[in-house]
Amino acid sequence: MAAAADEHQPSETPPLLLVHRLPRFKLSFFPFLQTEYTVLDPLADPPDPSFPDLSKSARIMLCVGPTPVGSDELDRYPAVECVVGSSAGLNHIDLAACRRRGVRVTSAGDAFSDDVADYAVGLAIDVLRRVSAADRFVRAGSWPVQKEYLLGSKVSGKRVGIVGLGSIGSRVAKRFEAFGCTIAYNSRSMKSHVSYTYYANVVDLASNTDILIVCCALTNETYHVINNDVMTALGKTGIIVNVGRGALIDEKELVEFLVRGELGGAGLDVFEHEPHVPKELLTLDSVVLSPHKAVFTPESFAALEKVVLGNIQAFFSNEPLLTEI
Amino acid sequence: MAAAADEHQPSETPPLLLVHRLPRFKLSFFPFLQTEYTVLDPLADPPDPSFPDLSKSARIMLCVGPTPVGSDELDRYPAVECVVGSSAGLNHIDLAACRRRGVRVTSAGDAFSDDVADYAVGLAIDVLRRVSAADRFVRAGSWPVQKEYLLGSKVSGKRVGIVGLGSIGSRVAKRFEAFGCTIAYNSRSMKSHVSYTYYANVVDLASNTDILIVCCALTNETYHVINNDVMTALGKTGIIVNVGRGALIDEKELVEFLVRGELGGAGLDVFEHEPHVPKELLTLDSVVLSPHKAVFTPESFAALEKVVLGNIQAFFSNEPLLTEI
Repeated sequence: MAAAADEHQPSETPPLLLVHRLPRFKLSFFPFLQTEYTVLDPLADPPDPSFPDLSKSARIMLCVGPTPVGSDELDRYPAVECVVGSSAGLNHIDLAACRRRGVRVTSAGDAFSDDVADYAVGLAIDVLRRVSAADRFVRAGSWPVQKEYLLGSKVSGKRVGIVGLGSIGSRVAKRFEAFGCTIAYNSRSMKSHVSYTYYANVVDLASNTDILIVCCALTNETYHVINNDVMTALGKTGIIVNVGRGALIDEKELVEFLVRGELGGAGLDVFEHEPHVPKELLTLDSVVLSPHKAVFTPESFAALEKVVLGNIQAFFSNEPLLTEI
Repeated sequence: MAAAADEHQPSETPPLLLVHRLPRFKLSFFPFLQTEYTVLDPLADPPDPSFPDLSKSARIMLCVGPTPVGSDELDRYPAVECVVGSSAGLNHIDLAACRRRGVRVTSAGDAFSDDVADYAVGLAIDVLRRVSAADRFVRAGSWPVQKEYLLGSKVSGKRVGIVGLGSIGSRVAKRFEAFGCTIAYNSRSMKSHVSYTYYANVVDLASNTDILIVCCALTNETYHVINNDVMTALGKTGIIVNVGRGALIDEKELVEFLVRGELGGAGLDVFEHEPHVPKELLTLDSVVLSPHKAVFTPESFAALEKVVLGNIQAFFSNEPLLTEI
């Protein structure tokens, strides 16, 4: 019961919370933490002189965004029993290494799913109907001058193929159904609770798809799952939307297909080497480029805050974690 | 039965079809007409010497896009019995003048409705989630350099208000329902076949709305229906999407609200003085600008071709017009 007391009765020293982050992921996303925990931030500015000592005894690590957690990090912080993730995908966390050491891991759960699904639909409409290209056209003052430009392509009624029918993918499906689109999917196994057409193979899915939405987890099995064969199957009028992880697509191939016009277009929120975006894409009207922000709304941050704080509180109270994986 | 014979048995002189268009509306949108009709185009280049004589006896006029048809035009072509419109909105045609002379009028019917509804949803997601702004950000090379930018706002669960629950508006409603949005609407009268909340007054609708979609017909009654009061009711976090006609909104007021940040944003496919776009809008990240292209897909042109040709054929066959208004 000592742990629960940490939580509910303010003590002289609030529980230690180790933060793990890359410099580009601001701690300001988590202002609520400072009031309840002794936050240990290795990137604190000015540096925190107590960090080297205290971090050795921290039992819980908050991993901000896709900051890598592997054996090195786990060695560095030997007392860590739980890694609280703050992203939907956990490919940056070496889950096998965590498992070997008995370190528990939590994800952001469903906190981002609606926002990512909304964004995926938005990117698909934008690519097919050339919304960003139209905006660029108007802002450049071309409307009164130039008379013609690309028509784009209809969204309603198209065949949508979803790679990964999880929390995000099923929300994408629901939205596209309302556009009169037909839905098919690929995932590790067929889902018994949906009537969408299942393809065990992504190439087969792509052959029967106009709009391919990539929203599965990045694992060893799904690395470069969208390859030359898939893009060939999708063809000149097909488009790809990636709201998963950059490395799900063979980006070098993707760029070549887009530059050669052998793929209809792409809406990309993620890239293989973020924040690097292949320069060939920067001048194409057939693509919409986005800086890994499909999850970014004040509402989803509020939902994330709730799940992160809920997991930390549950850990210190010896209660079941909310989103343990 | 002579008229029907015109249609089915090729004769020496195919029926006359008068085209009425502004220079910026290309006749190339209607290549199928040339094979079945004697097309009379006042803007033919080189000019058609037979035009002045033949146009006097043309019984049917194809009005391309929003080219104005008023008493002057009807005086100029005295034999016209039917104006075949090629747009969803018919505010450019003086319907009262047509009625007085017994001239029948057809619209594009539902040919564009899915495309316009898709585009409205795309613009709303784009404005709320800053998709075009994100694309601009990445193309400008700002991602690796700049660390923060506007978060945008969640789409799912928002309150959608639709001004004009016709063929387009009801399709917009259906799509947003799949995003978990609540739907309310304003129209001339309450629709008994839907369960959405009805507001007889646009200000009341706007007071209860996050995303206001404007897709009603432009008439004397709806001119500037989106005015200062409506924008005040919508407020700082509300957004407007206009896929109807520019003059449905008091554009001068809209620009001021947007520049002052008193409205959350706007997705505008139409403007009061097209192709002029107020220059204040060109640098705002809170707006998405589009050159009146919500209807533009190859698929909707094919659907339009079908309805235009169907109306012309029905006219010459003395059969009921497909989309008479």
